[in-house]
Amino acid sequence: MATILAMDTSATPVSCAVVRDGRVVYSCFAHNGSVHSQTLMPMVDKALDVAGIAVGELDAIAVSAGPGSFTGVRIGVSAVKGISFTGNIPCVSVSTLEAMAKNVSGLPFDGVVCCVMDARCQQVYMALFELGTDGQTVRLTPDQAISIEELKKTLKKLEKSVILVGDGSDLCYNILKSEIRSLFLSPLSIRYQNAVGVAQVAVDKLRDGDTLTGEELQPVYLRLPQAERELRARQQQEK
Amino acid sequence: MATILAMDTSATPVSCAVVRDGRVVYSCFAHNGSVHSQTLMPMVDKALDVAGIAVGELDAIAVSAGPGSFTGVRIGVSAVKGISFTGNIPCVSVSTLEAMAKNVSGLPFDGVVCCVMDARCQQVYMALFELGTDGQTVRLTPDQAISIEELKKTLKKLEKSVILVGDGSDLCYNILKSEIRSLFLSPLSIRYQNAVGVAQVAVDKLRDGDTLTGEELQPVYLRLPQAERELRARQQQEK
Repeated sequence: MATILAMDTSATPVSCAVVRDGRVVYSCFAHNGSVHSQTLMPMVDKALDVAGIAVGELDAIAVSAGPGSFTGVRIGVSAVKGISFTGNIPCVSVSTLEAMAKNVSGLPFDGVVCCVMDARCQQVYMALFELGTDGQTVRLTPDQAISIEELKKTLKKLEKSVILVGDGSDLCYNILKSEIRSLFLSPLSIRYQNAVGVAQVAVDKLRDGDTLTGEELQPVYLRLPQAERELRARQQQEK
Repeated sequence: MATILAMDTSATPVSCAVVRDGRVVYSCFAHNGSVHSQTLMPMVDKALDVAGIAVGELDAIAVSAGPGSFTGVRIGVSAVKGISFTGNIPCVSVSTLEAMAKNVSGLPFDGVVCCVMDARCQQVYMALFELGTDGQTVRLTPDQAISIEELKKTLKKLEKSVILVGDGSDLCYNILKSEIRSLFLSPLSIRYQNAVGVAQVAVDKLRDGDTLTGEELQPVYLRLPQAERELRARQQQEK
Protein backbone atom coordinates (compact mmCIF):
# COMPACT_ATOMS: atom_id res chain seq x y z
CA MET A 1 0.00 0.00 0.00
CA ALA A 2 1.11 3.55 -0.51
CA THR A 3 0.76 7.20 0.40
CA ILE A 4 -0.09 9.43 -2.54
CA LEU A 5 -0.60 13.17 -2.90
CA ALA A 6 -2.75 14.01 -5.92
CA MET A 7 -3.92 17.22 -7.52
CA ASP A 8 -6.20 18.35 -10.32
CA THR A 9 -6.18 21.75 -12.00
CA SER A 10 -7.46 20.64 -15.40
CA ALA A 11 -10.52 22.89 -15.48
CA THR A 12 -12.14 25.66 -13.43
CA PRO A 13 -12.15 23.71 -10.13
CA VAL A 14 -8.96 22.99 -8.21
CA SER A 15 -8.57 20.03 -5.89
CA CYS A 16 -6.03 17.99 -4.01
CA ALA A 17 -6.15 14.76 -2.02
CA VAL A 18 -4.02 12.53 0.14
CA VAL A 19 -4.80 8.82 -0.13
CA ARG A 20 -3.03 6.35 2.15
CA ASP A 21 -3.45 2.58 2.01
CA GLY A 22 -6.66 2.79 0.01
CA ARG A 23 -8.28 5.36 2.28
CA VAL A 24 -8.97 9.03 1.56
CA VAL A 25 -7.13 10.77 4.41
CA TYR A 26 -7.82 14.28 3.14
CA SER A 27 -9.48 15.89 0.16
CA CYS A 28 -10.25 19.45 -0.74
CA PHE A 29 -12.12 20.89 -3.73
CA ALA A 30 -12.67 24.56 -4.61
CA HIS A 31 -14.77 25.83 -7.50
CA ASN A 32 -15.02 29.49 -6.77
CA GLY A 33 -13.48 31.16 -9.80
CA SER A 34 -10.15 31.50 -8.03
CA VAL A 35 -6.80 31.54 -9.80
CA HIS A 36 -5.19 28.07 -9.63
CA SER A 37 -1.69 29.52 -9.37
CA GLN A 38 -2.74 31.20 -6.12
CA THR A 39 -5.03 28.48 -4.76
CA LEU A 40 -3.21 25.23 -5.42
CA MET A 41 -0.06 25.44 -3.31
CA PRO A 42 -1.73 26.66 -0.08
CA MET A 43 -4.28 23.86 -0.59
CA VAL A 44 -1.51 21.26 -0.97
CA ASP A 45 0.30 22.66 2.06
CA LYS A 46 -2.90 22.40 4.12
CA ALA A 47 -3.54 18.86 2.86
CA LEU A 48 -0.14 17.58 3.99
CA ASP A 49 -0.46 19.47 7.26
CA VAL A 50 -3.94 18.11 8.13
CA ALA A 51 -3.02 14.62 6.90
CA GLY A 52 0.08 14.82 9.12
CA ILE A 53 2.31 13.68 6.26
CA ALA A 54 5.73 15.09 5.35
CA VAL A 55 6.69 15.42 1.68
CA GLY A 56 9.43 12.84 2.23
CA GLU A 57 6.86 10.22 3.29
CA LEU A 58 5.03 10.34 -0.05
CA ASP A 59 5.42 7.30 -2.29
CA ALA A 60 4.29 9.30 -5.30
CA ILE A 61 2.79 12.61 -6.39
CA ALA A 62 0.07 12.36 -8.99
CA VAL A 63 -1.47 14.91 -11.29
CA SER A 64 -4.09 14.99 -13.99
CA ALA A 65 -1.61 15.88 -16.73
CA GLY A 66 -4.30 16.38 -19.34
CA PRO A 67 -6.38 16.78 -21.26
CA GLY A 68 -7.57 20.09 -19.86
CA SER A 69 -7.17 23.82 -19.84
CA PHE A 70 -3.65 24.64 -21.09
CA THR A 71 -2.87 27.01 -18.24
CA GLY A 72 -4.55 24.77 -15.68
CA VAL A 73 -2.64 21.66 -16.70
CA ARG A 74 0.66 23.58 -16.73
CA ILE A 75 0.04 24.81 -13.19
CA GLY A 76 -0.66 21.32 -11.87
CA VAL A 77 2.24 19.70 -13.70
CA SER A 78 4.65 22.48 -12.63
CA ALA A 79 3.60 22.15 -9.00
CA VAL A 80 4.14 18.39 -9.05
CA LYS A 81 7.53 18.78 -10.76
CA GLY A 82 8.55 21.28 -8.10
CA ILE A 83 7.56 19.08 -5.16
CA SER A 84 9.04 16.01 -6.84
CA PHE A 85 12.43 17.74 -7.26
CA THR A 86 12.69 18.66 -3.58
CA GLY A 87 12.41 15.06 -2.39
CA ASN A 88 13.21 13.05 -5.52
CA ILE A 89 9.69 11.62 -5.34
CA PRO A 90 8.24 9.65 -8.26
CA CYS A 91 5.51 11.36 -10.28
CA VAL A 92 2.44 9.71 -11.76
CA SER A 93 0.86 11.19 -14.87
CA VAL A 94 -2.87 10.51 -14.88
CA SER A 95 -5.39 11.08 -17.65
CA THR A 96 -7.93 13.59 -16.40
CA LEU A 97 -10.66 11.57 -18.11
CA GLU A 98 -9.59 8.25 -16.59
CA ALA A 99 -9.49 9.88 -13.13
CA MET A 100 -13.10 10.99 -13.39
CA ALA A 101 -14.20 7.50 -14.52
CA LYS A 102 -12.57 6.14 -11.36
CA ASN A 103 -14.93 8.27 -9.29
CA VAL A 104 -17.86 6.06 -10.31
CA SER A 105 -15.97 2.76 -10.33
CA GLY A 106 -17.35 -0.18 -8.37
CA LEU A 107 -20.96 0.64 -9.13
CA PRO A 108 -23.13 -1.98 -10.83
CA PHE A 109 -23.75 -0.42 -14.25
CA ASP A 110 -23.52 -2.21 -17.58
CA GLY A 111 -23.68 0.90 -19.74
CA VAL A 112 -20.91 3.31 -20.67
CA VAL A 113 -19.26 6.03 -18.61
CA CYS A 114 -18.67 9.05 -20.84
CA CYS A 115 -16.01 11.29 -19.33
CA VAL A 116 -16.31 14.68 -20.88
CA MET A 117 -14.65 18.07 -20.49
CA ASP A 118 -15.67 21.36 -22.03
CA ALA A 119 -12.88 22.18 -24.51
CA ARG A 120 -14.70 25.33 -25.72
CA CYS A 121 -15.72 26.09 -29.35
CA GLN A 122 -18.36 23.28 -29.26
CA GLN A 123 -15.56 20.76 -28.69
CA VAL A 124 -15.08 18.32 -25.84
CA TYR A 125 -12.26 16.20 -24.52
CA MET A 126 -13.75 12.78 -24.00
CA ALA A 127 -13.11 9.10 -23.41
CA LEU A 128 -15.46 6.18 -22.85
CA PHE A 129 -15.12 3.53 -20.15
CA GLU A 130 -16.96 0.50 -18.86
CA LEU A 131 -17.11 -0.38 -15.17
CA GLY A 132 -15.54 -3.72 -14.24
CA THR A 133 -16.91 -5.87 -11.44
CA ASP A 134 -13.77 -5.44 -9.33
CA GLY A 135 -13.78 -1.64 -9.06
CA GLN A 136 -11.68 -1.33 -12.20
CA THR A 137 -12.49 0.89 -15.17
CA VAL A 138 -12.12 -0.57 -18.64
CA ARG A 139 -11.09 1.93 -21.29
CA LEU A 140 -13.11 1.76 -24.54
CA THR A 141 -11.56 4.73 -26.40
CA PRO A 142 -8.40 6.81 -26.17
CA ASP A 143 -8.65 10.36 -24.82
CA GLN A 144 -9.71 12.52 -27.74
CA ALA A 145 -10.80 16.05 -28.69
CA ILE A 146 -13.99 15.90 -30.75
CA SER A 147 -17.01 18.06 -31.51
CA ILE A 148 -20.21 17.66 -29.49
CA GLU A 149 -21.84 16.65 -32.80
CA GLU A 150 -19.36 13.77 -33.14
CA LEU A 151 -19.96 12.80 -29.51
CA LYS A 152 -23.68 12.64 -30.22
CA LYS A 153 -23.12 10.26 -33.14
CA THR A 154 -20.78 8.08 -31.06
CA LEU A 155 -23.20 7.79 -28.14
CA LYS A 156 -26.22 7.17 -30.41
CA LYS A 157 -24.40 4.32 -32.11
CA LEU A 158 -23.66 2.64 -28.75
CA GLU A 159 -27.33 2.07 -27.91
CA LYS A 160 -26.44 1.78 -24.24
CA SER A 161 -27.14 3.71 -21.06
CA VAL A 162 -24.62 6.50 -20.59
CA ILE A 163 -23.45 8.22 -17.41
CA LEU A 164 -21.83 11.62 -18.01
CA VAL A 165 -18.97 12.65 -15.71
CA GLY A 166 -16.75 15.73 -15.78
CA ASP A 167 -16.93 19.50 -16.14
CA GLY A 168 -18.49 19.09 -19.60
CA SER A 169 -21.30 16.85 -18.42
CA ASP A 170 -23.95 19.52 -17.77
CA LEU A 171 -23.24 21.11 -21.17
CA CYS A 172 -23.47 17.76 -22.96
CA TYR A 173 -26.50 16.62 -20.97
CA ASN A 174 -28.47 19.70 -22.01
CA ILE A 175 -27.51 19.35 -25.67
CA LEU A 176 -27.85 15.56 -25.93
CA LYS A 177 -30.69 14.57 -23.59
CA SER A 178 -33.35 14.84 -26.32
CA GLU A 179 -31.26 12.67 -28.67
CA ILE A 180 -29.82 10.00 -26.34
CA ARG A 181 -32.51 7.87 -24.77
CA SER A 182 -30.78 6.74 -21.62
CA LEU A 183 -28.50 9.56 -20.51
CA PHE A 184 -27.64 10.28 -16.85
CA LEU A 185 -25.69 12.94 -14.97
CA SER A 186 -23.33 11.55 -12.35
CA PRO A 187 -24.11 12.54 -8.73
CA LEU A 188 -23.21 16.14 -7.89
CA SER A 189 -20.58 14.98 -5.35
CA ILE A 190 -18.52 13.37 -8.13
CA ARG A 191 -19.66 15.21 -11.25
CA TYR A 192 -16.51 17.29 -11.64
CA GLN A 193 -13.00 15.94 -11.95
CA ASN A 194 -11.30 15.77 -8.57
CA ALA A 195 -8.03 14.70 -7.07
CA VAL A 196 -9.48 11.65 -5.29
CA GLY A 197 -9.99 10.01 -8.69
CA VAL A 198 -6.47 11.04 -9.71
CA ALA A 199 -5.05 9.42 -6.59
CA GLN A 200 -6.97 6.20 -7.21
CA VAL A 201 -5.65 5.82 -10.75
CA ALA A 202 -2.18 6.63 -9.40
CA VAL A 203 -2.41 3.79 -6.86
CA ASP A 204 -2.80 1.33 -9.75
CA LYS A 205 -0.04 2.95 -11.85
CA LEU A 206 2.38 3.05 -8.93
CA ARG A 207 1.76 -0.64 -8.26
CA ASP A 208 2.54 -1.32 -11.94
CA GLY A 209 5.75 0.73 -11.75
CA ASP A 210 4.31 3.28 -14.18
CA THR A 211 5.99 6.37 -12.69
CA LEU A 212 8.04 9.26 -14.07
CA THR A 213 10.73 11.54 -12.73
CA GLY A 214 9.96 15.23 -12.31
CA GLU A 215 11.93 15.91 -15.53
CA GLU A 216 9.97 13.33 -17.50
CA LEU A 217 6.52 14.53 -16.40
CA GLN A 218 4.90 16.55 -19.20
CA PRO A 219 1.47 18.03 -19.91
CA VAL A 220 -0.76 16.07 -22.31
CA TYR A 221 -2.64 18.62 -24.39
CA LEU A 222 -4.34 16.48 -27.10
CA ARG A 223 -4.61 19.52 -29.36
CA LEU A 224 -2.65 22.69 -30.06
CA PRO A 225 -3.34 25.82 -28.02
CA GLN A 226 -5.89 28.18 -29.60
CA ALA A 227 -3.20 30.75 -30.57
CA GLU A 228 -1.24 28.09 -32.47
CA ARG A 229 -4.40 26.71 -34.11
CA GLU A 230 -5.26 30.21 -35.32
CA LEU A 231 -1.68 30.82 -36.54
CA ARG A 232 -1.68 27.57 -38.53
CA ALA A 233 -5.07 28.34 -40.00
CA ARG A 234 -3.78 31.75 -41.12
CA GLN A 235 -0.62 30.21 -42.56
CA GLN A 236 -2.79 27.68 -44.41
CA GLN A 237 -4.88 30.49 -45.92
CA GLU A 238 -1.76 32.42 -46.98
CA LYS A 239 -0.38 29.45 -48.89
CA MET B 1 -31.51 28.86 -5.32
CA ALA B 2 -29.54 29.20 -2.16
CA THR B 3 -26.19 29.33 -0.41
CA ILE B 4 -25.73 26.61 2.18
CA LEU B 5 -22.92 25.75 4.57
CA ALA B 6 -23.00 22.10 5.61
CA MET B 7 -20.98 19.96 7.96
CA ASP B 8 -20.69 16.34 9.00
CA THR B 9 -19.03 15.04 12.17
CA SER B 10 -21.15 11.92 12.59
CA ALA B 11 -18.26 9.42 12.51
CA THR B 12 -14.45 9.40 12.37
CA PRO B 13 -14.19 11.69 9.30
CA VAL B 14 -15.00 15.38 9.47
CA SER B 15 -16.15 17.39 6.49
CA CYS B 16 -17.70 20.66 5.47
CA ALA B 17 -19.03 22.07 2.22
CA VAL B 18 -20.42 25.23 0.72
CA VAL B 19 -23.03 24.69 -1.99
CA ARG B 20 -24.38 27.67 -3.91
CA ASP B 21 -27.13 27.51 -6.54
CA GLY B 22 -26.74 23.77 -7.03
CA ARG B 23 -22.96 23.90 -7.39
CA VAL B 24 -20.32 22.68 -4.97
CA VAL B 25 -18.24 25.82 -4.38
CA TYR B 26 -16.01 24.25 -1.76
CA SER B 27 -15.71 20.95 0.03
CA CYS B 28 -13.19 19.56 2.46
CA PHE B 29 -12.95 16.09 4.02
CA ALA B 30 -10.43 14.87 6.62
CA HIS B 31 -10.17 11.32 7.91
CA ASN B 32 -6.93 11.38 9.80
CA GLY B 33 -7.90 10.44 13.34
CA SER B 34 -8.05 14.09 14.36
CA VAL B 35 -10.30 15.41 17.10
CA HIS B 36 -13.43 16.97 15.58
CA SER B 37 -13.61 19.65 18.26
CA GLN B 38 -10.21 20.90 17.04
CA THR B 39 -10.63 20.26 13.31
CA LEU B 40 -14.15 21.40 12.50
CA MET B 41 -14.14 25.14 13.16
CA PRO B 42 -10.86 25.93 11.36
CA MET B 43 -12.19 23.87 8.43
CA VAL B 44 -15.45 25.85 8.39
CA ASP B 45 -13.52 29.11 8.64
CA LYS B 46 -11.37 28.10 5.67
CA ALA B 47 -14.42 27.00 3.67
CA LEU B 48 -16.15 30.36 4.02
CA ASP B 49 -12.88 32.18 3.34
CA VAL B 50 -12.06 30.24 0.15
CA ALA B 51 -15.67 30.32 -1.01
CA GLY B 52 -15.63 34.08 -0.43
CA ILE B 53 -18.87 33.94 1.51
CA ALA B 54 -19.66 35.82 4.74
CA VAL B 55 -21.74 34.10 7.43
CA GLY B 56 -24.47 36.70 6.87
CA GLU B 57 -24.85 35.62 3.23
CA LEU B 58 -25.79 32.04 4.14
CA ASP B 59 -29.41 31.05 3.55
CA ALA B 60 -29.03 28.09 5.89
CA ILE B 61 -26.53 26.03 7.86
CA ALA B 62 -26.99 22.29 7.65
CA VAL B 63 -25.67 19.47 9.77
CA SER B 64 -25.99 15.72 9.87
CA ALA B 65 -27.76 15.73 13.24
CA GLY B 66 -27.68 11.95 13.57
CA PRO B 67 -27.54 9.09 13.76
CA GLY B 68 -23.87 8.93 14.57
CA SER B 69 -21.22 9.02 17.23
CA PHE B 70 -22.66 10.78 20.29
CA THR B 71 -19.71 13.09 20.73
CA GLY B 72 -19.37 13.65 16.98
CA VAL B 73 -22.99 14.61 16.51
CA ARG B 74 -22.89 16.93 19.52
CA ILE B 75 -19.85 18.74 18.10
CA GLY B 76 -21.50 19.30 14.71
CA VAL B 77 -24.84 20.36 16.17
CA SER B 78 -23.15 22.70 18.68
CA ALA B 79 -21.07 24.34 15.96
CA VAL B 80 -24.13 24.94 13.80
CA LYS B 81 -26.09 26.31 16.77
CA GLY B 82 -23.21 28.69 17.49
CA ILE B 83 -22.93 30.03 13.95
CA SER B 84 -26.71 30.22 13.62
CA PHE B 85 -26.99 32.37 16.77
CA THR B 86 -24.47 34.95 15.53
CA GLY B 87 -26.42 35.74 12.38
CA ASN B 88 -29.90 34.42 13.15
CA ILE B 89 -29.47 31.97 10.27
CA PRO B 90 -31.92 29.08 9.78
CA CYS B 91 -30.59 25.58 10.56
CA VAL B 92 -31.39 22.42 8.66
CA SER B 93 -31.29 19.08 10.48
CA VAL B 94 -30.30 16.33 8.06
CA SER B 95 -30.34 12.57 8.60
CA THR B 96 -26.76 11.34 8.24
CA LEU B 97 -28.09 8.29 6.38
CA GLU B 98 -30.19 10.31 3.95
CA ALA B 99 -27.21 12.57 3.22
CA MET B 100 -25.04 9.62 2.17
CA ALA B 101 -27.81 8.26 -0.08
CA LYS B 102 -27.84 11.64 -1.82
CA ASN B 103 -24.20 11.12 -2.79
CA VAL B 104 -25.22 8.37 -5.22
CA SER B 105 -28.47 9.98 -6.39
CA GLY B 106 -29.07 10.42 -10.10
CA LEU B 107 -27.42 7.13 -11.06
CA PRO B 108 -29.40 4.56 -13.01
CA PHE B 109 -29.80 1.75 -10.48
CA ASP B 110 -32.98 -0.16 -9.75
CA GLY B 111 -31.71 -1.89 -6.62
CA VAL B 112 -31.52 -0.58 -3.07
CA VAL B 113 -29.05 1.85 -1.53
CA CYS B 114 -28.20 0.64 1.97
CA CYS B 115 -26.80 3.50 4.04
CA VAL B 116 -24.96 2.03 6.95
CA MET B 117 -22.88 3.32 9.85
CA ASP B 118 -20.80 1.34 12.30
CA ALA B 119 -22.62 1.75 15.66
CA ARG B 120 -20.17 -0.61 17.44
CA CYS B 121 -21.10 -3.81 19.34
CA GLN B 122 -22.11 -5.56 16.05
CA GLN B 123 -24.79 -2.94 15.56
CA VAL B 124 -25.33 -0.53 12.68
CA TYR B 125 -27.35 2.58 12.04
CA MET B 126 -29.04 2.02 8.73
CA ALA B 127 -31.74 3.11 6.32
CA LEU B 128 -32.70 1.90 2.86
CA PHE B 129 -33.39 4.10 -0.16
CA GLU B 130 -34.25 3.74 -3.83
CA LEU B 131 -32.91 6.13 -6.45
CA GLY B 132 -35.55 8.12 -8.31
CA THR B 133 -35.12 9.09 -11.97
CA ASP B 134 -34.96 12.78 -11.18
CA GLY B 135 -31.97 12.72 -8.83
CA GLN B 136 -34.23 12.21 -5.83
CA THR B 137 -33.79 9.52 -3.20
CA VAL B 138 -36.88 7.59 -2.10
CA ARG B 139 -36.81 6.45 1.51
CA LEU B 140 -37.84 2.82 2.08
CA THR B 141 -37.22 2.56 5.85
CA PRO B 142 -36.80 4.97 8.77
CA ASP B 143 -33.33 5.45 10.25
CA GLN B 144 -32.82 2.59 12.71
CA ALA B 145 -30.25 0.94 14.96
CA ILE B 146 -30.17 -2.81 14.28
CA SER B 147 -27.74 -5.71 14.54
CA ILE B 148 -25.69 -6.75 11.50
CA GLU B 149 -27.55 -10.07 11.75
CA GLU B 150 -30.88 -8.27 11.34
CA LEU B 151 -29.44 -6.27 8.44
CA LYS B 152 -28.44 -9.51 6.74
CA LYS B 153 -32.00 -10.87 7.05
CA THR B 154 -33.48 -7.62 5.72
CA LEU B 155 -31.18 -7.49 2.68
CA LYS B 156 -31.62 -11.19 1.91
CA LYS B 157 -35.40 -10.78 1.91
CA LEU B 158 -35.17 -7.91 -0.61
CA GLU B 159 -33.69 -10.08 -3.38
CA LYS B 160 -32.33 -6.98 -5.07
CA SER B 161 -28.91 -5.53 -5.88
CA VAL B 162 -27.59 -3.50 -2.96
CA ILE B 163 -25.09 -0.63 -2.92
CA LEU B 164 -23.52 -0.02 0.48
CA VAL B 165 -22.68 3.57 1.43
CA GLY B 166 -21.30 5.00 4.66
CA ASP B 167 -18.59 4.38 7.23
CA GLY B 168 -20.08 0.97 8.02
CA SER B 169 -20.02 -0.23 4.42
CA ASP B 170 -16.60 -1.95 4.45
CA LEU B 171 -17.50 -3.75 7.69
CA CYS B 172 -20.87 -4.90 6.33
CA TYR B 173 -19.45 -5.80 2.92
CA ASN B 174 -16.91 -8.14 4.47
CA ILE B 175 -19.48 -9.81 6.72
CA LEU B 176 -22.31 -10.01 4.18
CA LYS B 177 -20.68 -10.56 0.78
CA SER B 178 -20.86 -14.35 1.02
CA GLU B 179 -24.56 -14.18 1.94
CA ILE B 180 -25.93 -11.43 -0.30
CA ARG B 181 -25.59 -12.29 -3.97
CA SER B 182 -25.46 -8.83 -5.51
CA LEU B 183 -23.69 -6.55 -3.03
CA PHE B 184 -21.57 -3.55 -4.06
CA LEU B 185 -19.37 -1.01 -2.31
CA SER B 186 -19.98 2.58 -3.39
CA PRO B 187 -17.03 4.32 -5.11
CA LEU B 188 -14.24 5.34 -2.71
CA SER B 189 -14.83 9.05 -3.45
CA ILE B 190 -18.33 8.87 -1.94
CA ARG B 191 -18.14 5.85 0.35
CA TYR B 192 -18.04 7.81 3.60
CA GLN B 193 -20.62 10.33 4.70
CA ASN B 194 -19.65 13.85 3.68
CA ALA B 195 -20.98 17.36 3.90
CA VAL B 196 -21.76 17.63 0.17
CA GLY B 197 -24.56 15.11 0.64
CA VAL B 198 -25.73 17.00 3.74
CA ALA B 199 -25.87 20.23 1.73
CA GLN B 200 -27.85 18.58 -1.07
CA VAL B 201 -30.53 17.26 1.29
CA ALA B 202 -30.60 20.70 2.93
CA VAL B 203 -31.31 22.38 -0.43
CA ASP B 204 -34.52 20.32 -0.70
CA LYS B 205 -35.51 20.91 2.93
CA LEU B 206 -34.86 24.65 2.72
CA ARG B 207 -37.04 24.84 -0.39
CA ASP B 208 -39.80 23.06 1.53
CA GLY B 209 -39.43 25.47 4.48
CA ASP B 210 -38.23 22.63 6.70
CA THR B 211 -35.81 24.68 8.82
CA LEU B 212 -35.18 25.11 12.54
CA THR B 213 -33.86 27.88 14.75
CA GLY B 214 -30.57 27.34 16.55
CA GLU B 215 -32.54 26.69 19.75
CA GLU B 216 -34.71 24.06 18.09
CA LEU B 217 -31.85 22.11 16.47
CA GLN B 218 -31.18 18.91 18.45
CA PRO B 219 -29.05 15.80 18.01
CA VAL B 220 -30.90 12.67 16.85
CA TYR B 221 -29.32 9.72 18.63
CA LEU B 222 -31.67 6.79 17.78
CA ARG B 223 -30.49 4.90 20.85
CA LEU B 224 -29.30 5.68 24.37
CA PRO B 225 -25.58 6.30 24.99
CA GLN B 226 -23.62 3.22 26.04
CA ALA B 227 -23.31 4.42 29.66
CA GLU B 228 -27.08 4.79 29.97
CA ARG B 229 -27.69 1.44 28.26
CA GLU B 230 -25.37 -0.25 30.75
CA LEU B 231 -26.98 1.56 33.69
CA ARG B 232 -30.47 0.46 32.62
CA ALA B 233 -29.29 -3.12 32.09
CA ARG B 234 -27.82 -3.11 35.61
CA GLN B 235 -31.02 -1.62 37.06
CA GLN B 236 -33.00 -4.30 35.25
CA GLN B 237 -30.84 -7.06 36.75
CA GLU B 238 -31.18 -5.60 40.25
CA LYS B 239 -34.97 -5.68 40.08
